[in-house]
Amino acid sequence: MKRTIFLFVFTAITLLSNAQSWIWYPGDYEIWLGNQMNNRRTERGAFFPPFWKMDSHYVLVEFSKKIDLAVAEEIEIAIEGKFNIKLDGKLQFGMPHKFTLPAGKHSLNIKVWNQSTPPAIYVKGKTVNSDESWKVTYEDKEWIDESGKASDTSATIYMDAATSNQFKSTGTPPSSFKLATEPISVVKREKKNEGELFDFEKETFGFIQLKGLKGNGEMHIYYGESPEEALDTKYCETLDRIRLEGSTVTDEALDVTSKLTDIFTLGNSKAFRYVYITKDAGVEMQDVSMLYEYKPEVKRGSFRCNNEEVNKMWEVGAYTMQLTTREFFIDGIKRDRWVWSGDAIQSYLMNYYLFFDTETVKNNIWLLRGKDPVTSHTNTIMDYTFYWFLSIYDYYKFTGDTHFIEQVYPRMQTMMDYVLGRTNKNGMVEGQTGDWVFVDWADGYMDKHGELSYEQILFCKSLETMSICAKLVNNNGDKTKYDSLSTSLRNKLEPAFWNETKQALVHNRLNGKQKDAVTRYANMFAVFFNYLSPEKQQIIKKSVLLNDSIMKISTPYMRFYELEALCAMGEQKAVMKEMKDYWGGMIREGATTFWEKYNPSDKGTQHLAMYGRPYGKSLCHAWGASPIYLLGKYYLGIQPVKAGYSEFSITPNLGGLAWMEGTVPTPAGEIKLYINNKTIKVRASQGKGYINFSSKSKPKTNIGQIEKLHGTDYRLLINTKEEVSINYSIKN
Amino acid sequence: MKRTIFLFVFTAITLLSNAQSWIWYPGDYEIWLGNQMNNRRTERGAFFPPFWKMDSHYVLVEFSKKIDLAVAEEIEIAIEGKFNIKLDGKLQFGMPHKFTLPAGKHSLNIKVWNQSTPPAIYVKGKTVNSDESWKVTYEDKEWIDESGKASDTSATIYMDAATSNQFKSTGTPPSSFKLATEPISVVKREKKNEGELFDFEKETFGFIQLKGLKGNGEMHIYYGESPEEALDTKYCETLDRIRLEGSTVTDEALDVTSKLTDIFTLGNSKAFRYVYITKDAGVEMQDVSMLYEYKPEVKRGSFRCNNEEVNKMWEVGAYTMQLTTREFFIDGIKRDRWVWSGDAIQSYLMNYYLFFDTETVKNNIWLLRGKDPVTSHTNTIMDYTFYWFLSIYDYYKFTGDTHFIEQVYPRMQTMMDYVLGRTNKNGMVEGQTGDWVFVDWADGYMDKHGELSYEQILFCKSLETMSICAKLVNNNGDKTKYDSLSTSLRNKLEPAFWNETKQALVHNRLNGKQKDAVTRYANMFAVFFNYLSPEKQQIIKKSVLLNDSIMKISTPYMRFYELEALCAMGEQKAVMKEMKDYWGGMIREGATTFWEKYNPSDKGTQHLAMYGRPYGKSLCHAWGASPIYLLGKYYLGIQPVKAGYSEFSITPNLGGLAWMEGTVPTPAGEIKLYINNKTIKVRASQGKGYINFSSKSKPKTNIGQIEKLHGTDYRLLINTKEEVSINYSIKN
Repeated sequence: MKRTIFLFVFTAITLLSNAQSWIWYPGDYEIWLGNQMNNRRTERGAFFPPFWKMDSHYVLVEFSKKIDLAVAEEIEIAIEGKFNIKLDGKLQFGMPHKFTLPAGKHSLNIKVWNQSTPPAIYVKGKTVNSDESWKVTYEDKEWIDESGKASDTSATIYMDAATSNQFKSTGTPPSSFKLATEPISVVKREKKNEGELFDFEKETFGFIQLKGLKGNGEMHIYYGESPEEALDTKYCETLDRIRLEGSTVTDEALDVTSKLTDIFTLGNSKAFRYVYITKDAGVEMQDVSMLYEYKPEVKRGSFRCNNEEVNKMWEVGAYTMQLTTREFFIDGIKRDRWVWSGDAIQSYLMNYYLFFDTETVKNNIWLLRGKDPVTSHTNTIMDYTFYWFLSIYDYYKFTGDTHFIEQVYPRMQTMMDYVLGRTNKNGMVEGQTGDWVFVDWADGYMDKHGELSYEQILFCKSLETMSICAKLVNNNGDKTKYDSLSTSLRNKLEPAFWNETKQALVHNRLNGKQKDAVTRYANMFAVFFNYLSPEKQQIIKKSVLLNDSIMKISTPYMRFYELEALCAMGEQKAVMKEMKDYWGGMIREGATTFWEKYNPSDKGTQHLAMYGRPYGKSLCHAWGASPIYLLGKYYLGIQPVKAGYSEFSITPNLGGLAWMEGTVPTPAGEIKLYINNKTIKVRASQGKGYINFSSKSKPKTNIGQIEKLHGTDYRLLINTKEEVSINYSIKN
Repeated sequence: MKRTIFLFVFTAITLLSNAQSWIWYPGDYEIWLGNQMNNRRTERGAFFPPFWKMDSHYVLVEFSKKIDLAVAEEIEIAIEGKFNIKLDGKLQFGMPHKFTLPAGKHSLNIKVWNQSTPPAIYVKGKTVNSDESWKVTYEDKEWIDESGKASDTSATIYMDAATSNQFKSTGTPPSSFKLATEPISVVKREKKNEGELFDFEKETFGFIQLKGLKGNGEMHIYYGESPEEALDTKYCETLDRIRLEGSTVTDEALDVTSKLTDIFTLGNSKAFRYVYITKDAGVEMQDVSMLYEYKPEVKRGSFRCNNEEVNKMWEVGAYTMQLTTREFFIDGIKRDRWVWSGDAIQSYLMNYYLFFDTETVKNNIWLLRGKDPVTSHTNTIMDYTFYWFLSIYDYYKFTGDTHFIEQVYPRMQTMMDYVLGRTNKNGMVEGQTGDWVFVDWADGYMDKHGELSYEQILFCKSLETMSICAKLVNNNGDKTKYDSLSTSLRNKLEPAFWNETKQALVHNRLNGKQKDAVTRYANMFAVFFNYLSPEKQQIIKKSVLLNDSIMKISTPYMRFYELEALCAMGEQKAVMKEMKDYWGGMIREGATTFWEKYNPSDKGTQHLAMYGRPYGKSLCHAWGASPIYLLGKYYLGIQPVKAGYSEFSITPNLGGLAWMEGTVPTPAGEIKLYINNKTIKVRASQGKGYINFSSKSKPKTNIGQIEKLHGTDYRLLINTKEEVSINYSIKN
């Protein structure tokens, strides 16, 4: 099984480099597809688009390629849009489907206009094929003067064309993208009040199908993640209405009428476990089923251990990820169905330990950035802007893909210009009117005014990310600039926010004065960003992280970082207990996917309410799936040390488990680990790196030389594709 | 006739303020329509879009209105796009066509997504109607927090909705815009070589129609502004090809196949006077005609005089304007069919003396500016950026429309930011790679390097325009800033470019050193911008403007300003002679519309060549029509003194003619003038102002009191709608 996947990955890479594919302007497919997706969100039958600027693709794009042919060659051409072809500057008649390129050196240019979907081209020849080696621009600036001389286009900005393995034949242009579907039957049905309740037995997503519709009148469909929600026709979050009139049926939310056939499929997919259906007396219906709508993903990561509760946690997390990984990584499937930067960065991290679907990560990053000019923070949220920067460094670390950094870097610059244009006289960020300072959904008052320590820490890390990326794209001027900015801000953090009395970073500073409150946010980020001395980190662990008098975090979103901070300080045992309480708690409440927010002290339907609405909470929320990440990174203990896992580190920590085993995917392979209290087995099909462990006795291995470090600490360099076994005896 | 027009104008204004109309985000309709138009340009059957960035409309727009109803009211709703309706923050189910607004105070919001055409809405109720009082935004920034509380949207940028008299019923949304058409027969046909030449007897524009097509095979259609061009199948600028296959016909340039009917109409309209048609032996065709495609315009301006050559010049100018006034004011109808800023500002000025079609002026200004970010000069041309600024002040002066200035001002700011971001250490502009420093098509070498005096003068005037507009929109900070920038630059102009030896402004300065060449451009602009002392202006007249050793101007484009400068100095007699030589010369060469460029010394087909192509020159070019403007502004002598003609001035100058009469349109009326050497008659239906004239004898009038000024100069205040007569005796 694992070997199959391994081969699959290499095959895909080979195809990409050798064969033709649809190509387009980088980011434009994502922006277009994002608009399609964002506009499928509904609230009680009303279309519900975002409140931030929706961008658009460049409507006119020029694709170009320098060719050098030994013999003349005919190319097939497929285009999404109205187009022209220019050979060596000479326009050719019409919009041909085939064109013969003469032998020799030539310039081939194809210019495409498309208002509705991204201009895209597909060229297939013996040697000339559309791929990432083509150049694209939205503005060629090529004019001719009175004498017919062409202008100097050396200042024109060309990018490498973007492509994807999904669109490799003429018949599947990028605008044809659709998620996969699969018919699924209902599991239980039951008459309730004046209607009928249908149960699909777990949270799911898709198009409701109605079989054997007949008659005249209205039918109402109420969706619920819980039976309470589906049955509450006044307050359930999503619903549909259809109208039967003899041989026609109208999907009323979409205002679409069609001819009635045996199975009628609703036009918009929804998230639900339950649907409750009521209908006028004149309407008949035989059965309900659904078309499950999903993104085909391969679970390349895995985790098993002796504790079934933990295994279940991983499985529910993986299913939560499967449901929220759609056109993009979205937050929750019922309500928002949008791409949110703070949510997305966590999805990416979980994804690196589950699907390793790097294409969807890139798609999200392009979409979240959108086009210039920047007119607001990402999703309007200040912290989400910073997560956008951070996610790019994460992406680089896990994939080693510098080409993507080169492509996206210009948009990083303009995004950072926006941020820098809004700093105060201390060089810090403060929320201005129209900026959403989010931090977290908290069960208590949280001050959003002035300089929040949490925001400055994220800002500082974003500036460091700019510096790293500037270096990757060989922009020395930028590197110097961002180094200077990040150092300056970093040096201000402790003086501004550290409070000796509280032995912690305070939450914020207003008009230069520290406020009283201490929250977990800045403190936990300061820990795992290593922004404080090891001594201060230990102090914070006691004074904040393990201090119950500090306001508790009740979202999986911030629990992600809280538990990550604790894991980073070796508290895997304590975190295991937390995971069993918190994620285990949701499962004991009947969760089939993880929730947006969970407060163990809530009872019954209290768990369903949020945003002042009885069913406002999302019961399938990506940020709920963090056990996937924690178990992979801090228990299996596998992570990249150099970009793209060319070097990795393995620091397993059983955290109280008797044994565990799992797989962590890498760009072109995987790392497999098994560990109990006597044996460790590792097989890494890509890269090399150290495994670090402690042993009471002197450990032995079948391959290589174990090095002794301090005390009972050892390490062994893994630099083979063979399975490496270690015999040791666990310390503790 | 004149009275009818007068009433028509008032009716239109009344309708606009009282009735519902389609509304959209300002500028978006223009950008969308501009893309449609720019993509109809072809070159020898190839689609030929611009080389600059094509922008797009905002795809998601929120329309809102605060309402206060005495009684409940049902509204009809028509929308271009997918939409939702929110009443007092509450989303309503589906996408209803009718909706009942309850009595009382409410907020009504409609949010529309449309990827292909601009989001637009049409609301019709008893009192609630879609009009310019609605607000629009592309980014409402309205989110809700955990408790359900909505965000503070006070920083959200709302604009007034845009509308137009053209789109006043549900059935005519903005995306339905089409030019008018009218069938026209061919005048002459003649067998030539292997084909047939058809002559429509004057330059025209439209869709060729082929009657009685039969058979199988290809037919080639070659368009020509001259018979030489149409007959030159290898080099004519535009052509079409159709293929007949039994019952179907394929328009090959557009790759569109349709069923063959009695009359086949080509899919793209073209400019031509002649078409030459060749066909395969298997193809039959009975007749050729055309669908003339045009924008319905009313000639509100007029001019007649004793000299038929001058009358003809005005008529040919007016027809040139009619053909080039299309979706927008375009440059030439055969080749470019694009909107060019330098050409457009002249079209606007001619238009103020002909159609007074202010809506098309606004459309052009929005389209030429496009969206942020600014990534190049307007049309990539540095001088064209400056003309864009200047055209806004002209628009204000002729119309008095401050609302438009308010709407467009934010885009003026970002355009000027772009310019200021590219100035050198002297605060001057220099062409950088990718900037087109155009100036003019010249018959000789023109240096484009370093600081061109011409560009600095236009830049300075643009900064002054920013200051004026900042004042109009009550932005005092900006006013101070632009005053300071323009004063600083103005003070540098003479020290930098005036050359005592040459008694003129030199053409350019390179690395701080004046170059030798003197051209007419900066000198003539300095004259009519009054940037030099009256003494220096007189010097320039002699040393440059009337000096034959300075490189002659051979485009009507720059002749426009050259002759304007001479007229501004009272040289109407000399200019009349120039007009007769130059525009008269084109007419004597057989022109039915005015040309892009004319050099009287060229012979025969030399007149047709440009850009290194034998028929590259446009024979119907808007900038050729300047006699319209010169005759109205400097002979009839009528122009606004205060914005929108609330005050005007009339300074007639017969320039050697025995008599002339004419009408100049104003926003809500007209000014009519007749003059010969003894009598002046004026009737102004709007505004008031002085008529200035000289008389050897003491003049008399029927209304008012003539004031004597210096010497033989007099003036009379016109402050009546009645006809005012003056008896005088002309001074020569």
